Amino acid sequence: MSKNAVISIDIGGTNTKIGIVDFDGTIINQTVISTTDYPDINIFVDTVINEISLLNKGNKNILKGIGIGAPNGNIYSGSIEFAPNLIWKGIIPLAKMFTEKTKLLSVLTNDANAATIGEMKFGAAKNIKNFIFITLGTGVGSGIVVDGKLVYGHDGLAGEIGHVIVFPDGRECGCGRKGCLEMYASVRGICITMKELMQKYNQPKLLPLNFNSKDIFLLAEKGNKIAIEAFKITGEILGLAIANSVAYTSPSDIFMFGGLAHAWEFLYPSTIDSFNNNLLKIYKNKIEIKKSELKDSDAAILGGAAIIIDKLSE
Amino acid sequence: MSKNAVISIDIGGTNTKIGIVDFDGTIINQTVISTTDYPDINIFVDTVINEISLLNKGNKNILKGIGIGAPNGNIYSGSIEFAPNLIWKGIIPLAKMFTEKTKLLSVLTNDANAATIGEMKFGAAKNIKNFIFITLGTGVGSGIVVDGKLVYGHDGLAGEIGHVIVFPDGRECGCGRKGCLEMYASVRGICITMKELMQKYNQPKLLPLNFNSKDIFLLAEKGNKIAIEAFKITGEILGLAIANSVAYTSPSDIFMFGGLAHAWEFLYPSTIDSFNNNLLKIYKNKIEIKKSELKDSDAAILGGAAIIIDKLSE
Repeated sequence: MSKNAVISIDIGGTNTKIGIVDFDGTIINQTVISTTDYPDINIFVDTVINEISLLNKGNKNILKGIGIGAPNGNIYSGSIEFAPNLIWKGIIPLAKMFTEKTKLLSVLTNDANAATIGEMKFGAAKNIKNFIFITLGTGVGSGIVVDGKLVYGHDGLAGEIGHVIVFPDGRECGCGRKGCLEMYASVRGICITMKELMQKYNQPKLLPLNFNSKDIFLLAEKGNKIAIEAFKITGEILGLAIANSVAYTSPSDIFMFGGLAHAWEFLYPSTIDSFNNNLLKIYKNKIEIKKSELKDSDAAILGGAAIIIDKLSE
Repeated sequence: MSKNAVISIDIGGTNTKIGIVDFDGTIINQTVISTTDYPDINIFVDTVINEISLLNKGNKNILKGIGIGAPNGNIYSGSIEFAPNLIWKGIIPLAKMFTEKTKLLSVLTNDANAATIGEMKFGAAKNIKNFIFITLGTGVGSGIVVDGKLVYGHDGLAGEIGHVIVFPDGRECGCGRKGCLEMYASVRGICITMKELMQKYNQPKLLPLNFNSKDIFLLAEKGNKIAIEAFKITGEILGLAIANSVAYTSPSDIFMFGGLAHAWEFLYPSTIDSFNNNLLKIYKNKIEIKKSELKDSDAAILGGAAIIIDKLSE
């Protein structure tokens, strides 16, 4: 029997994942193509549509709409806007392009927002009306949910907690400013912290050149004190930043997702300590900080599915 | 002819204002009583109700509800919760008490939230769906509006921008933590900054002991460089803090209200410079920073009226 489903597209700088997902969040079928193989956006769109046909051979599923997660995706315009890490420059009206070619309702937002709605529809935030979702990946992304709705703001670009300045005159950030949370509590951030500690303790060869956060994690697992300290410092800054975040929208829960969240056992203790120490008294003992329940491999596809299912149910 | 109207009650540590306001935001009649004269909350409520009868002699207006603004007021519970500056300690279920004695729908929230809704209903934010309202008074309060609704959060206590930590390990705040915005960008904050500057420039007698922000303002108006610098430093910190705030809810407008906002000519230039310098690129040239259009003397009464009118229209 044919089943109602949606298409989910997760666009990354390197790869694009395409999936068919039913309304309960089961991924029926999925595939991956290389984003960088398609510098012409029109050929990219045609290729994705072709892949969708292959995934849905014999029209087994009745496709109801398309949800797209992409860096710098703007829900209001349905466009990718000046994404530094994508091959397509300027403004790409991708939702409109997909709708024109498929006649299906298409919605586009940024990847962190999509994952946030994924957590709300299919993950740990199912019955939670006020929460913050934070992705600790190469950078730091976030989605803020108030009263059961994702906050988009007047221009569709709300929820950039990674670019809140935690240390005025701190580390230089790729955004051109200094001291952003992203420069401390991301994969990139902890690597800088680790380098500083290796210098401080005069152990420049503790890790190979171009090490990444996983190398720090493996060292920490072996009990290395410097690696453990790198996580501790990262957690202290993260805890302060999320304590500050609470003062804006007063969430009941904060979810952590992405690469660094996997090292939760090393990150968690100092994050929680710092969070509690820096939290305003009126918010104390009310807020849970948890790991996301979305699997890394599924989150992007589920996020895209969630935003279109959300839109279809409006 | 009798007219529909609401009762507004603004409770402060020293005085309580009581007003009758029509649905267009015209204050029909108002009075003030001394809060501290009524350590017994029951006698306070009875007195307020008596004052309302006097204000509404001959039942000239048809009273539809009661809106109350109070420090530490929680909209969900209708209670004042542990307000350090009020004579009543613990939890005071004030909305319920007024409803029981008057049979009128009563709503209570904190003063900054009430003023925010006042700005939205009767002031400069009339058609604005996403904005932040900041009160620069003795402390710093705020209200955050997303999609036309004030953000209350899961517990009713959202919007405490004054207690966002801008300088980790900065000035000690009354809340028990360090480096809160309130310790820099409030009347209290600028006085500390001024004291530091007077010491730095070896002019300890430039202002009398126990000077306040108005004294700094009067000095600045005379062209005194130290006073002007105090405003400049305050604006720089305020600008950074509001630039950070934008990354949460992406508002189109930010409104400034209260004591310090009156010195806008001295505060504005460095606030705007710092705001622009610290704003993430994607938000640039989109956001207006303005003075509130509410008169100080009316804001509290209009705020209380606005929250009950808002509730009645649900």
